[in-house]
Amino acid sequence: MSAKVLINGYGSIGKRVADAVAVQDDMEVIGVSKTKPDFEARLAVEKGYKLFVAVPDRERIKLFEEAGIPVEGTILDVIEEADIVVDGAPKKIGKQNLENIYKPNKVKAILQGGEKAKDVEDSFNALWSFDRCYGKDYIRVVSCNTTGLCRILYAINEVSNIKKARVVLVRRAADPNDDKTGPINAITPNPVTVPSHHGPDVVSVVPELEGKILTSAVIVPTTLMHQHTLMVEVDDNISREDVLDSILKTPRIITVKAEDGFTSTAKIIEYGRDIGRLRYDINELVIWEESVNVLDREIFLMQAVHQESIVVPENIDCIRAMLQMEDDKFKSIEKTNKAMGIK
Amino acid sequence: MSAKVLINGYGSIGKRVADAVAVQDDMEVIGVSKTKPDFEARLAVEKGYKLFVAVPDRERIKLFEEAGIPVEGTILDVIEEADIVVDGAPKKIGKQNLENIYKPNKVKAILQGGEKAKDVEDSFNALWSFDRCYGKDYIRVVSCNTTGLCRILYAINEVSNIKKARVVLVRRAADPNDDKTGPINAITPNPVTVPSHHGPDVVSVVPELEGKILTSAVIVPTTLMHQHTLMVEVDDNISREDVLDSILKTPRIITVKAEDGFTSTAKIIEYGRDIGRLRYDINELVIWEESVNVLDREIFLMQAVHQESIVVPENIDCIRAMLQMEDDKFKSIEKTNKAMGIK
Amino acid sequence: MSAKVLINGYGSIGKRVADAVAVQDDMEVIGVSKTKPDFEARLAVEKGYKLFVAVPDRERIKLFEEAGIPVEGTILDVIEEADIVVDGAPKKIGKQNLENIYKPNKVKAILQGGEKAKDVEDSFNALWSFDRCYGKDYIRVVSCNTTGLCRILYAINEVSNIKKARVVLVRRAADPNDDKTGPINAITPNPVTVPSHHGPDVVSVVPELEGKILTSAVIVPTTLMHQHTLMVEVDDNISREDVLDSILKTPRIITVKAEDGFTSTAKIIEYGRDIGRLRYDINELVIWEESVNVLDREIFLMQAVHQESIVVPENIDCIRAMLQMEDDKFKSIEKTNKAMGIK
Amino acid sequence: MSAKVLINGYGSIGKRVADAVAVQDDMEVIGVSKTKPDFEARLAVEKGYKLFVAVPDRERIKLFEEAGIPVEGTILDVIEEADIVVDGAPKKIGKQNLENIYKPNKVKAILQGGEKAKDVEDSFNALWSFDRCYGKDYIRVVSCNTTGLCRILYAINEVSNIKKARVVLVRRAADPNDDKTGPINAITPNPVTVPSHHGPDVVSVVPELEGKILTSAVIVPTTLMHQHTLMVEVDDNISREDVLDSILKTPRIITVKAEDGFTSTAKIIEYGRDIGRLRYDINELVIWEESVNVLDREIFLMQAVHQESIVVPENIDCIRAMLQMEDDKFKSIEKTNKAMGIK
Ligand SMILES: NC(=O)c1ccc[n+]([C@@H]2O[C@H](COP(=O)([O-])OP(=O)(O)OC[C@H]3O[C@@H](n4cnc5c(N)ncnc54)[C@H](O)[C@@H]3O)[C@@H](O)[C@H]2O)c1
Ligand SMILES: NC(=O)c1ccc[n+]([C@@H]2O[C@H](COP(=O)([O-])OP(=O)(O)OC[C@H]3O[C@@H](n4cnc5c(N)ncnc54)[C@H](O)[C@@H]3O)[C@@H](O)[C@H]2O)c1
Ligand SMILES: NC(=O)c1ccc[n+]([C@@H]2O[C@H](COP(=O)([O-])OP(=O)(O)OC[C@H]3O[C@@H](n4cnc5c(N)ncnc54)[C@H](O)[C@@H]3O)[C@@H](O)[C@H]2O)c1
Ligand SMILES: NC(=O)c1ccc[n+]([C@@H]2O[C@H](COP(=O)([O-])OP(=O)(O)OC[C@H]3O[C@@H](n4cnc5c(N)ncnc54)[C@H](O)[C@@H]3O)[C@@H](O)[C@H]2O)c1
Repeated sequence: MSAKVLINGYGSIGKRVADAVAVQDDMEVIGVSKTKPDFEARLAVEKGYKLFVAVPDRERIKLFEEAGIPVEGTILDVIEEADIVVDGAPKKIGKQNLENIYKPNKVKAILQGGEKAKDVEDSFNALWSFDRCYGKDYIRVVSCNTTGLCRILYAINEVSNIKKARVVLVRRAADPNDDKTGPINAITPNPVTVPSHHGPDVVSVVPELEGKILTSAVIVPTTLMHQHTLMVEVDDNISREDVLDSILKTPRIITVKAEDGFTSTAKIIEYGRDIGRLRYDINELVIWEESVNVLDREIFLMQAVHQESIVVPENIDCIRAMLQMEDDKFKSIEKTNKAMGIK
Repeated sequence: MSAKVLINGYGSIGKRVADAVAVQDDMEVIGVSKTKPDFEARLAVEKGYKLFVAVPDRERIKLFEEAGIPVEGTILDVIEEADIVVDGAPKKIGKQNLENIYKPNKVKAILQGGEKAKDVEDSFNALWSFDRCYGKDYIRVVSCNTTGLCRILYAINEVSNIKKARVVLVRRAADPNDDKTGPINAITPNPVTVPSHHGPDVVSVVPELEGKILTSAVIVPTTLMHQHTLMVEVDDNISREDVLDSILKTPRIITVKAEDGFTSTAKIIEYGRDIGRLRYDINELVIWEESVNVLDREIFLMQAVHQESIVVPENIDCIRAMLQMEDDKFKSIEKTNKAMGIK
Repeated sequence: MSAKVLINGYGSIGKRVADAVAVQDDMEVIGVSKTKPDFEARLAVEKGYKLFVAVPDRERIKLFEEAGIPVEGTILDVIEEADIVVDGAPKKIGKQNLENIYKPNKVKAILQGGEKAKDVEDSFNALWSFDRCYGKDYIRVVSCNTTGLCRILYAINEVSNIKKARVVLVRRAADPNDDKTGPINAITPNPVTVPSHHGPDVVSVVPELEGKILTSAVIVPTTLMHQHTLMVEVDDNISREDVLDSILKTPRIITVKAEDGFTSTAKIIEYGRDIGRLRYDINELVIWEESVNVLDREIFLMQAVHQESIVVPENIDCIRAMLQMEDDKFKSIEKTNKAMGIK
Repeated sequence: MSAKVLINGYGSIGKRVADAVAVQDDMEVIGVSKTKPDFEARLAVEKGYKLFVAVPDRERIKLFEEAGIPVEGTILDVIEEADIVVDGAPKKIGKQNLENIYKPNKVKAILQGGEKAKDVEDSFNALWSFDRCYGKDYIRVVSCNTTGLCRILYAINEVSNIKKARVVLVRRAADPNDDKTGPINAITPNPVTVPSHHGPDVVSVVPELEGKILTSAVIVPTTLMHQHTLMVEVDDNISREDVLDSILKTPRIITVKAEDGFTSTAKIIEYGRDIGRLRYDINELVIWEESVNVLDREIFLMQAVHQESIVVPENIDCIRAMLQMEDDKFKSIEKTNKAMGIK
């Protein structure tokens, strides 16, 4: 019997999670929700998803009907059928939905990285906190940046204990479909304080890194991917090959070579397009092979994070953990990956 | 028996034409060529295409072998087997290939829009010059901008005779995978003279528009699509509905509404991603429905051109015309569209 | 005795108008206003301007004081001393200020291009409507785009009667100091309907062009300048030289040549920097000389508009007209230009 | 008697050094050179500089004459008069000029940061290597990024010995007047290897940092400024105030606060425009005050580097050192700063 998943907020993350749920054999999408009757709403219906109005406002149903997009009711008309809700609402709205809708309706819920760690029971990354989240009710899948960091730190931690990780995040300013947000020509420290909140966010997943990860972030005028530079001090005298080996063994990480033409995030996206990924998604964390280096027990490397899709398989594994569908994290990861075509 | 097509120059256009040939039931890809052993070359082999070195230089074969990418020889080792070559080499190289390789080897060849009209027998657009190119040997499929203009002018011409067309082209400065070309923050008149060469290029396809199409073009810092504004004086007192009807009847044109969320080229590309097009390609010319207007026998509208893919189905029809595989242009267009999932 | 000018809203336009007033010998800045105690406020004080809080809220004075920036009170503490207010508040706020502050306090006021024509007595451009605005109380200096169009249409109108002007505006998406607004990678029709409101805005200044100017506009990801392509049908069989001559004779227009290195808006801005203009302002409309062409009684040309500064000298002339300080528009223009170093 | 300075290569750096020399009372510009007769060449003449053709090719003189720009001859016609040449030629050309022109003509020469440390006698930064370069013949003023790092590391070194400095550089992809170079929408690791060459370049100025500075760099689509994040381990248990104090005491560094509106590099440039700096140049290194932090004997901070102008005062001090005009570096720095209006 397959798990009934409701997607509340069919935006950049929501639509991808819906499609990822749909290709798993142990879960199904019982509905998706939108606030506005735009082309994304129309496509949801064309894909065969049952569409609901995201807010419990029956007046809004008319808006959809006027636009010729059939809706089945509001979120409240379907929530009882759900085994779990994946919330894909904008930043800060997820928390409101948790308090106003999910908790009162006693349905398990996954929030996304725009929400705060303190507002949920725990923070999820398949490699690090699958077991901790097992059977829990309200969990947050951490942000794209944090997910990327968790994956690489897992690979590093496999070869040696992490003493101190220093990371600078160069963040894409807006998603590709966002035609409102800038800047057009500026670099913006965000936050302007150092260290940034990204370190503590990693710690919400990996408590043993408390005090050991220091991050700093800027926003730049690009839409494709984030880029991170890591400088990680470790306990042991390991080699570059040790690190590369561990990276290759860790699921959901791939390496690329500038020498092969992967000179920038633009080329990585071209690769996603060429291999025929839906929406060109690169769910894997991408490491530039030439950047990996070890000097004096310190690992250096550069990585790229496809913000729109990296958290999607994590949501799938999180569903399995919360609904106690599979207790071996690696089995869940492999199952998810296979269904989604992830390496 | 299927037509044997060789793709010389597996770049932005070449790789798309290869994939488009591969899905037709009356033609097949007998080989593709690259000059450098980069990730695109590797993916060509992984897709099952036979890979050749684009230049007749046996030394280069080693480069590919060293990179672990198997090649079958140089372009000269396969050219004799081809019924037709689709040239996808960079601007100006196509002409050289025509003189140095295709003509000496007596193989039919299609050049792309980076080449000049005068260097080939005729210029191709499926709607306008299919019959003229029928059975010919050396034909040029016109550029992305010209193809977009030919399609809309065909639709307009169906409702009324064109008296004068004025067009301003706002061109994307670089393709998405090009991480070298700018500008980053400027608008560049290109060419700085008005009218631009785009008018005469349309005339190379539609001679009856001689002296009736006046164009002007600028380059702007975006990678996704070109945008055109058209102001077309016609003979008859037609209505907005007449124009929209004709647009809807013309193959390879779709309309979108800003009201539905199609506020910019970014949203159109998001649509291409969401509907699962390979590489998010929008082979159709896209018209903003709200922009279509008629005032005093003058039609106004705005359109968007996905530069990377709009010419791809035209190449397929051009193959059929040159090899005399189908003498009804609309049948060829429909066959191509069906195989490629084009509206 | 010099005219007492109050600048309400010391932002992009306000600060420039303040500096332009300050260099005239027949007017003076009696105060400028800001809503927030940021670095622009601090610089206003350092320049010697008396600073006021833009909104009549005494609580806000504390905010400035806490930031160590001395303010002299709110806008209401100074308004009575003013002969005229130049409003530099954001779009739509100017109208509110007119109704809530300027009219009740019986002070003449100039609004900017973000306001609507119907909310003021008339719309100002020094060349076209100086006389009409003479002695009036509430006038709008039209937007940067409209000002640019008014100037070139004046030059054209001097050589031949305008039959029909078609214009496509390629607009900068945000000012250089705006680090919030996008898009980063898109072309946005704005408005998506054609013709756009820019034509009627020109008509608010030049009523005789009613029905004769048709415009269309897109927004692109650049911050430096707007670019316009004009296609203007005229009555007479004039030559390219006639047009260039008239352009050169018209004040506040300069020509540049791509051949001299002016290949883009970026190079024009570099010129502004090199000649030492304050804030690199190019108050003149800039025409690309190579673009000027005449074919069949139709003039073609491309121009660039420095959005931040083109309206500044117009504000100065508007002050003179409204306060009846000079009744010859050309004398006012020349006086303004000389003081500001404008060609 | 004032030092005779020849500027060979009147581009972004050359034109600024020329203007900076011109405002000093102990040196003068005896000529500037250009390869092409563009508007920059014309402006050089209008400013009163004697213009020469940068390459010893008499034919080129005609090109300038045809363009109506008077030249005084080629670089070889003036080189003998010079006490020193400041080379402002593009990357790698400086070295050629050194070998082919400056050395054969026995004239002292300053190369810029595009050249290699090994091709000159020493590398210059006013704070660190003024004394070492005193009286020398062939010196390189290090790049904009390296100059920025040298300044802040000097300030830090004043409060405590540097144990290890880790720096991530987010580099502007092109200068504002460059309308050819991209990327438009990508982040490019450059170099893709970590650590990058920027560390060794700092070491060329500050040998005692050998092995103690580790850098990594990416290129992003912006033109205004570079941004650096520094994480610097020091020997002593210093406070944030110690660091800020030292920063304030160090010449050619200023601090800004995001709280005051300095939220991005765009706002810093707006400040340069507002205070009336020629070409809006910010010759000072700019530190975001909120970013300065000390944790466990490690200093964190973010800084911005105006690439076009930061090296200009360094060139002036370098002239004084090489020509032995002033033996106290702080006196030279102060003299330069005062003449240029630098803080
Ligand atoms: N986009 C990314 O790169 C990214 C990456 C990782 C995590 N996240 C996080 O995922 C979450 C969603 O972000 P997104 O980028 O998908 O946003 P989005 O704006 O693309 O989509 C949000 C969707 O939520 C819907 N919505 C609006 N109000 C709602 C409500 N009250 N209830 C339910 N749905 C509502 C909207 O219709 C829209 O479809 C945020 O927490 C964000 O921080 C985003
Ligand atoms: N990219 C577009 O938007 C677009 C649109 C319409 C038409 N075109 C035209 O299509 C043609 C190809 O452009 P593109 O954008 O695909 O270029 P591209 O740079 O993406 O690809 C060119 C390919 O040609 C190969 N090549 C290089 N030298 C060659 C040679 N001597 N012989 C054969 N192949 C060689 C390269 O390896 C590369 O794979 C040009 O004429 C261009 O003007 C391009
Ligand atoms: N920036 C341009 O390119 C440009 C060009 C031509 C015309 N305009 C028009 O000029 C006007 C001002 O635009 P801007 O770009 O200078 O805006 P801006 O945002 O740069 O500056 C607006 C200023 O107004 C102040 N302000 C905010 N609320 C106010 C209030 N209630 N009363 C008075 N002042 C207030 C703010 O402190 C700020 O300093 C708008 O109508 C705009 O459409 C702008
Ligand atoms: N632009 C920056 O941000 C920056 C910052 C610091 C250092 N630099 C360094 O300064 C040097 C100059 O860079 P730029 O940005 O000023 O370059 P630029 O391209 O702006 O200017 C180069 C100038 O050199 C002239 N030139 C060309 N060939 C020449 C030759 N053979 N001899 C003499 N002059 C010649 C050109 O006419 C041009 O005016 C480079 O080494 C660069 O790495 C540049």
